[in-house]
Amino acid sequence: MAYQPYQASMLALGQAPSIIRETFEYGNRRAKEIGRENVFDFSLGNPSVPAPDSVHDTMRRLMDETDSVMLHGYTSAVGAEPVRTAVAEDINKRFGTGISASDIYMTCGAAASLTVTLHAILCPGDTCMTFAPFFPEYRVFVEAANAKLTVVPADLESFQMNLTALEALITPETKAIIVNTPNNPTGVVFTEENLRKFCDILRRKEAEYGHPIYLIADEPYRELVYDDSTVVPYLPNLYDDTFVCYSYSKSLSLPGERIGYIVVSPKMAQNREVYAAVCGAGRALGFVCAPSMAQRVIADNLGKTADLSVYRRNRDLLYNALTEYGYRCIYPDGAFYLWVQALEPDANAFCLKARDYELLLVPSDSFGCEGFVRIAYCVTTEMIERSLPAFKKLAESYQ
Amino acid sequence: MAYQPYQASMLALGQAPSIIRETFEYGNRRAKEIGRENVFDFSLGNPSVPAPDSVHDTMRRLMDETDSVMLHGYTSAVGAEPVRTAVAEDINKRFGTGISASDIYMTCGAAASLTVTLHAILCPGDTCMTFAPFFPEYRVFVEAANAKLTVVPADLESFQMNLTALEALITPETKAIIVNTPNNPTGVVFTEENLRKFCDILRRKEAEYGHPIYLIADEPYRELVYDDSTVVPYLPNLYDDTFVCYSYSKSLSLPGERIGYIVVSPKMAQNREVYAAVCGAGRALGFVCAPSMAQRVIADNLGKTADLSVYRRNRDLLYNALTEYGYRCIYPDGAFYLWVQALEPDANAFCLKARDYELLLVPSDSFGCEGFVRIAYCVTTEMIERSLPAFKKLAESYQ
Repeated sequence: MAYQPYQASMLALGQAPSIIRETFEYGNRRAKEIGRENVFDFSLGNPSVPAPDSVHDTMRRLMDETDSVMLHGYTSAVGAEPVRTAVAEDINKRFGTGISASDIYMTCGAAASLTVTLHAILCPGDTCMTFAPFFPEYRVFVEAANAKLTVVPADLESFQMNLTALEALITPETKAIIVNTPNNPTGVVFTEENLRKFCDILRRKEAEYGHPIYLIADEPYRELVYDDSTVVPYLPNLYDDTFVCYSYSKSLSLPGERIGYIVVSPKMAQNREVYAAVCGAGRALGFVCAPSMAQRVIADNLGKTADLSVYRRNRDLLYNALTEYGYRCIYPDGAFYLWVQALEPDANAFCLKARDYELLLVPSDSFGCEGFVRIAYCVTTEMIERSLPAFKKLAESYQ
Repeated sequence: MAYQPYQASMLALGQAPSIIRETFEYGNRRAKEIGRENVFDFSLGNPSVPAPDSVHDTMRRLMDETDSVMLHGYTSAVGAEPVRTAVAEDINKRFGTGISASDIYMTCGAAASLTVTLHAILCPGDTCMTFAPFFPEYRVFVEAANAKLTVVPADLESFQMNLTALEALITPETKAIIVNTPNNPTGVVFTEENLRKFCDILRRKEAEYGHPIYLIADEPYRELVYDDSTVVPYLPNLYDDTFVCYSYSKSLSLPGERIGYIVVSPKMAQNREVYAAVCGAGRALGFVCAPSMAQRVIADNLGKTADLSVYRRNRDLLYNALTEYGYRCIYPDGAFYLWVQALEPDANAFCLKARDYELLLVPSDSFGCEGFVRIAYCVTTEMIERSLPAFKKLAESYQ
């Protein structure tokens, strides 16, 4: 092979076109042409509500009361001990688990939670699975850990996990499976029944293959559920070999501050060795420690959230209107995405057509599933209201 | 090979004993036994002076004046554009360079700057070099990028870069060389003459091998120099194929906040491709963006530093006293480390002996060099004053 002045796979990643980014940038150009108020950009999954006031209250208090060298100094690589203790207690209180501070590893957000976990467990030759549709960075993270991603096709009716397809595709090389509920991009919450059946399959396959199959619960949207009847089961209670990858990006509206954690379930086989491998992976990837002030901020704001009622209002408004206009919408129990069947087989063509009505939607292809679009409703309610006639006209244009 | 429930290399890293951490923990146990004031812990390279007041002023102002969704939201993966513009202007003003915002990639601190850079350029089969003594994480970071670290032996007289040894060890597989000045662990600043000769060798070898050899300037200690006559040349001005890996941990005393940057020199061959590979590597490793408020904080505090005069006072006090007691000390132009020849050939044995006098020093072996100790003088001046009789007695015990 010719000498490469750079890592070809990293160059490819750095240059890879992103339909989400491209759509967002199109929206910015279009806003300059016709005015921001006339463009309905539903492309980005960024929290649109402010952090709760208590976050800034904590920051001010920390600055007033804490020695600067302590406040802004390195914490232990795994996170400050009082922070991990508080996080573990909060989890135990909410989910009846028996997690301790030594099962928690504080991270620089959800992406870091995933890359550190994957690097800790995946060996060359291993496969990691996930269910379509899925957050496209899963493929990037798994391949960076020198392993292979296998995608289980979607259940196009319910968008629950397709367990029949899972059983057909799982192999002895399967080391881990990433589960994302509430789900990006569909907004679906996997039911307890679906999850229990899934865990039964994993246990059966663990026994058959004679090695652990890790469940990686990617849960940044855990708190974003809108109906009192919706339950998001805590996976360490259903399956022993579970990691929880969490981030406060969505619950506290702090996505830029890069703060989250990994739970290595204490019920996991070889829990101490696996936790040590997590520490080694964090070190190898260059994380050192999660941002120190942000660690203390979240520890002081456990159980709090940004005002998530806006998302619920947006969901109801959008779901009801689009359903009325004749769109097939998957009912979103959580997250801030509405998953809608495109009005023609090619979701990309449908999204281009939608641009004629200044509607910026993301086609489903990049999520590993054809024929749908993702509508991110983490926007102002007022923009949704103004966009409804455009959605109506778009539907009419297909009649 | 037997099935591994974790990545063996990550487990090994996570379980690896660290002489620095072990020494620090010994110090904590000993402090409980005999009182903190009787233990002289020089093991940790953590800033001991507070961040400048302007840092908290900026944080308060940002909270008062900036919309929360903007302040704590995702920035572009490469960093907020106004931040990168300000950083580039600051560099250009100080060093006469022609760097633009599009050559800057904001990172989660120095370790991230290094891992992202190394993953961007290193391919399997490549070698990365560095000069002993060196920061031990270099080996971890290079090996995590699937490449090999070659260590150039130290010049035990001057502790400048040993260029004769470099020429003997460089090969066509050499893709990059990490240079750390002011140096951890020696405190030495490489002279302009040493650096110019080094760059001449690199240019000659680039021509001979027909491919770039990247200089990675690891510069977290750049601002920590204490004599007016000490100049730390800016490496992009001496050599085109240069990356600068920077962190604000030391200059602003914010090590826990994880904020730094990479400069991809605009003079570098294929600058745009290499910069894109940096973006790809940051994405693959899970960095998403550098912490958003910290980005804005450093942009508002460019050119400022914590009160570094304490380190200068400490250096003078310790260097003069230890030299007087008969120790051979390498004169530290910068950083906050004093590099001292052990009083017996085995530096580990010497450090154990020093513990008899409650002096906690780090033996040089872990830095790839035998027979020396590192004394981190980022401590209170008062502790150094109290420790001097112990250093005197330790020296006398060898007479």
